[in-house]
Amino acid sequence: MHKTVDIELGADILGANRRIAEDNAKLLAKAGVHSFDFMGSTGSGKTLLIEALIERLKGMGIRCAAITGDVAGDDDYRRLTAHGIRAANVNTDKDCHLDAHRVDHALEHLDLKCVDVLFVENVGNLVCPADFPLGTEKRIVMCSVTEGDDMIRKHPVIFMLADIVVINKVDLATAIEVDEKVLVRDLLRIRPGAKYVLTDAKHGKGVDELLALMGLDRLTPRGGTCAQV
Amino acid sequence: MHKTVDIELGADILGANRRIAEDNAKLLAKAGVHSFDFMGSTGSGKTLLIEALIERLKGMGIRCAAITGDVAGDDDYRRLTAHGIRAANVNTDKDCHLDAHRVDHALEHLDLKCVDVLFVENVGNLVCPADFPLGTEKRIVMCSVTEGDDMIRKHPVIFMLADIVVINKVDLATAIEVDEKVLVRDLLRIRPGAKYVLTDAKHGKGVDELLALMGLDRLTPRGGTCAQV
Repeated sequence: MHKTVDIELGADILGANRRIAEDNAKLLAKAGVHSFDFMGSTGSGKTLLIEALIERLKGMGIRCAAITGDVAGDDDYRRLTAHGIRAANVNTDKDCHLDAHRVDHALEHLDLKCVDVLFVENVGNLVCPADFPLGTEKRIVMCSVTEGDDMIRKHPVIFMLADIVVINKVDLATAIEVDEKVLVRDLLRIRPGAKYVLTDAKHGKGVDELLALMGLDRLTPRGGTCAQV
Repeated sequence: MHKTVDIELGADILGANRRIAEDNAKLLAKAGVHSFDFMGSTGSGKTLLIEALIERLKGMGIRCAAITGDVAGDDDYRRLTAHGIRAANVNTDKDCHLDAHRVDHALEHLDLKCVDVLFVENVGNLVCPADFPLGTEKRIVMCSVTEGDDMIRKHPVIFMLADIVVINKVDLATAIEVDEKVLVRDLLRIRPGAKYVLTDAKHGKGVDELLALMGLDRLTPRGGTCAQV
């Protein structure tokens, strides 16, 4: 029953989302903003990893902003704005993903001429966000070793469309008896040649490598005068 | 856009699901089967906890069965059937939750007269399964401390409707610097008097307590002759 309805409506919803995503992409490109959609399970470490990236970029004089998506609350928003960046919080209520329309509205609240890099933190799960591109430059999909070694083969769709895959919390692999090599093997089976990085966001491992994969390691500030956040 | 469509169709989809859920509930009650819908993030430990419960129940002479729901693959199905129980695997493709209709079909594949306790392992996330009751006796919602201390306040809807809340992997709380008391505090704020249990499924901690909350600690076998699985 549910599936039938999904199929009938799917093309319209997904088509409309895609058109708005394309508009977002044009807007961001015109403003010179590099943008990244971070997807991954709840607790895979998205916020902590973005925090580490923001600190690296701040050290390079790069101005960051964020859109934080969650079903409820502003935990992630508060964590990211504590780093002195511009941000917009989006509560999706019952929806398990951000969509391009919500991101479009969130962008209106950010002063894009004062932003070099935009982080979008999607709602935490490995299913729904796959169907809803937001118009970002790259899509980054994360999982952590503490979720078990079967996460990638259980969610092939989202990992197949990722521009970059992050396998986080590798410092805990031994304690939890999970072998991160299994995750890498499954990834390369569904997508040979996939770009991936092993990280331990808590202790900063892999963050520079990820920055390079994102194409941000040699980014220079665009300059211009912007008010302090 | 997506939200509007959701609202227009919601009542029909959810109403139809609820009616089938009621039929499932009647069927299970008539067959004398105690049934439990396990919901929780990917990697929160649902499968391992169900495995521990199955072993306890097997020791009491109780016959278990399982329905395993995942977007793709049969990892959980293989893990549970390794304990010598009847099971049905349901792949939801792109849907982020089981629904009553899929469970109805799965029940057709289980010989209910040979089942005392049925475990339904839902697709791993804390958003979508909330709206789709399956007709089980109780709904159990899990999270693990390794997901962070903000999981419950970020997903109030699903934790509010849980009959039992499980906070798992408490053995890792210190290593990951997460205080499980924050999770308990958030739970009792959104639902004072909620039934909850702290578990470490890997080492069997809290399993007996959960069994009691499920009302299964004094269950006796119904007898009857059934073929070996």
